[in-house]
Amino acid sequence: MTRTRIAHVRKVLEDLDLDAFLVSHLPNIRYLSGFTGSNAFLILSLRRQILVTDSRYREQSRNEARGFQIVVSDNSLVDAMARKSLFSRRRRVGFEAHCLPYASYGNLKKLFPGTKFVPKFNLVESIAAVKEASEVAAIREAISISDRVFQEILDFIKPGLRELDVAAEISYRQRKAGAERDAFDVIVASGWRSALPHGKATAKRIRPGELVTLDFGCSVRGYHSDLTRTIGVGSPSRRAREVYPVVLEAQERAIGAARSGMPARNLDEVARSFIRSRGFGKFFGHSLGHGLGLQVHELPKVSALSTDTLCEGNVITIEPGIYIPRLGGVRIEDDVLIKNGSCVVLTSAPKEFIVI
Amino acid sequence: MTRTRIAHVRKVLEDLDLDAFLVSHLPNIRYLSGFTGSNAFLILSLRRQILVTDSRYREQSRNEARGFQIVVSDNSLVDAMARKSLFSRRRRVGFEAHCLPYASYGNLKKLFPGTKFVPKFNLVESIAAVKEASEVAAIREAISISDRVFQEILDFIKPGLRELDVAAEISYRQRKAGAERDAFDVIVASGWRSALPHGKATAKRIRPGELVTLDFGCSVRGYHSDLTRTIGVGSPSRRAREVYPVVLEAQERAIGAARSGMPARNLDEVARSFIRSRGFGKFFGHSLGHGLGLQVHELPKVSALSTDTLCEGNVITIEPGIYIPRLGGVRIEDDVLIKNGSCVVLTSAPKEFIVI
Repeated sequence: MTRTRIAHVRKVLEDLDLDAFLVSHLPNIRYLSGFTGSNAFLILSLRRQILVTDSRYREQSRNEARGFQIVVSDNSLVDAMARKSLFSRRRRVGFEAHCLPYASYGNLKKLFPGTKFVPKFNLVESIAAVKEASEVAAIREAISISDRVFQEILDFIKPGLRELDVAAEISYRQRKAGAERDAFDVIVASGWRSALPHGKATAKRIRPGELVTLDFGCSVRGYHSDLTRTIGVGSPSRRAREVYPVVLEAQERAIGAARSGMPARNLDEVARSFIRSRGFGKFFGHSLGHGLGLQVHELPKVSALSTDTLCEGNVITIEPGIYIPRLGGVRIEDDVLIKNGSCVVLTSAPKEFIVI
Repeated sequence: MTRTRIAHVRKVLEDLDLDAFLVSHLPNIRYLSGFTGSNAFLILSLRRQILVTDSRYREQSRNEARGFQIVVSDNSLVDAMARKSLFSRRRRVGFEAHCLPYASYGNLKKLFPGTKFVPKFNLVESIAAVKEASEVAAIREAISISDRVFQEILDFIKPGLRELDVAAEISYRQRKAGAERDAFDVIVASGWRSALPHGKATAKRIRPGELVTLDFGCSVRGYHSDLTRTIGVGSPSRRAREVYPVVLEAQERAIGAARSGMPARNLDEVARSFIRSRGFGKFFGHSLGHGLGLQVHELPKVSALSTDTLCEGNVITIEPGIYIPRLGGVRIEDDVLIKNGSCVVLTSAPKEFIVI
């Protein structure tokens, strides 16, 4: 599986006249090698593939990164690369400019004076944005767990519970259902806190009449789901009832419009212009969505400023929201696959306004 | 609370002849401002304190980062800094070389040609390594939750359970007990997997006769606990029974030796030399411990190569281990506070070899 991906990177290296590529971003290391540890570099040249990690991962790296030469260091990984002269014969080595820290770059330059380190952006990410069937299968499994837990949690939520209680329950049920972990800290944002797009669960108690935004996901074989629904508890205000259908229609319009070949910013505009036309434009600050895979946020970007184009095999989220300070907010998010020219909705949790 | 910390940083800026410091590491941003979002820069000059974040955090940043000027950007944070000319009058600006990505550094240099960006290491981390009373209180709360959950989980674990079931239960119980979240993915490593120092829970089932290493923690007000115990299930092998007391004695010797003014590498050597003297030296690969606070791994480093010195107010883990490939491993970890010249053990979970 990783063999095709590595071949793809090597093709890009040839096109860019690079002798090797240094991968430092952990999700990219996992994508190319299968290694899941927390400290590693990966070096791909046209002929060699090397994983550098520390002694905690001696056994694990051998089990996971099949076909890779493993270098285990007891100290700095960059120093280990120098001791093994891993770049000494390579003139031009690409690196991940958006994630390699300045200090590591400085060390590399010092330790390999004969090598030119060339900053690159999204080299692996662009490849990983197009999902293979096995990746879509893992994402589908993660989504089906989150969908099921959403249904279950509707029976659990009641006024008086802390947001944290609801978050703990969601997290627990996802794992019992087979998830490896949460995709990110579960967001449970109730009442005025629902106006915070990233309102992680707190000790605040849920009260009658509030909106509650639930935004959570899980991972299966490293691949993520990402689901948002906003529900009402008791009797939500008239204002809340007005906002909900606007967000829902914006979301469904975007789903209807998504297709391969479309500039991602145009998809963002489908939802944004609709929300604007209903007078809520200034209350939708974040982007419409993002790619989803081994990372919760990956390519393509689906925002007003995105320069990406949607293509076959992309998995993206579509998640417009309206947030009115102090009053509350509504966000509805599905995960979709761009396929056969249009888009397949992978999420199946209900989207009508549920009041419990 | 953050005022004292900021004053401390400003003192260092004066000593280093820096006009400002750019903080990009999120735990450091939280330490200095209280802001808990996932995307921000913080700029401290001798007179100003500015938090730059994106529109998702407009409300939250105002609530959390009291006393800070807030700059909200709809796009790149570095571009926002340029539009606001945040560095234009500052000649020498320090930055966090170990974490600022190469690309951000490049952008800053381009956008602020008149400014010299000076790489610095551990400027904030060195201050944060010495805990205030309120920080120790939060760590103690987190530890007491983990201690309690360890006791509870002993009744839950039985042969036939998947490691993931145990991990889900630990995570759930920590949150129900008041934790905000897990400190890291719960490690449940059973049988041969206990020989992996970082064996995150998998679908493997726990079987009679195995060792099971549990390594977990949680966070309270952002501060972490970190607890490891290894237990036996059924009738562990004679070898396992031999290894356990060696690890335990190494750990207790280190606890007995820890005191302020001691080079941290000497503390590592106390445990390491004992394990070596018992013939297990090559099976203890990782470092003895690490600082613990807003980050799970922070200063001081407690390793054979550490150049840090233990001092009053440090909170560190002491966690020697012996890992015998294929056979299994034992690790015992407590969190301790360096105080009044010696060390106070904060953890209270039992350390005798428990077989269930």
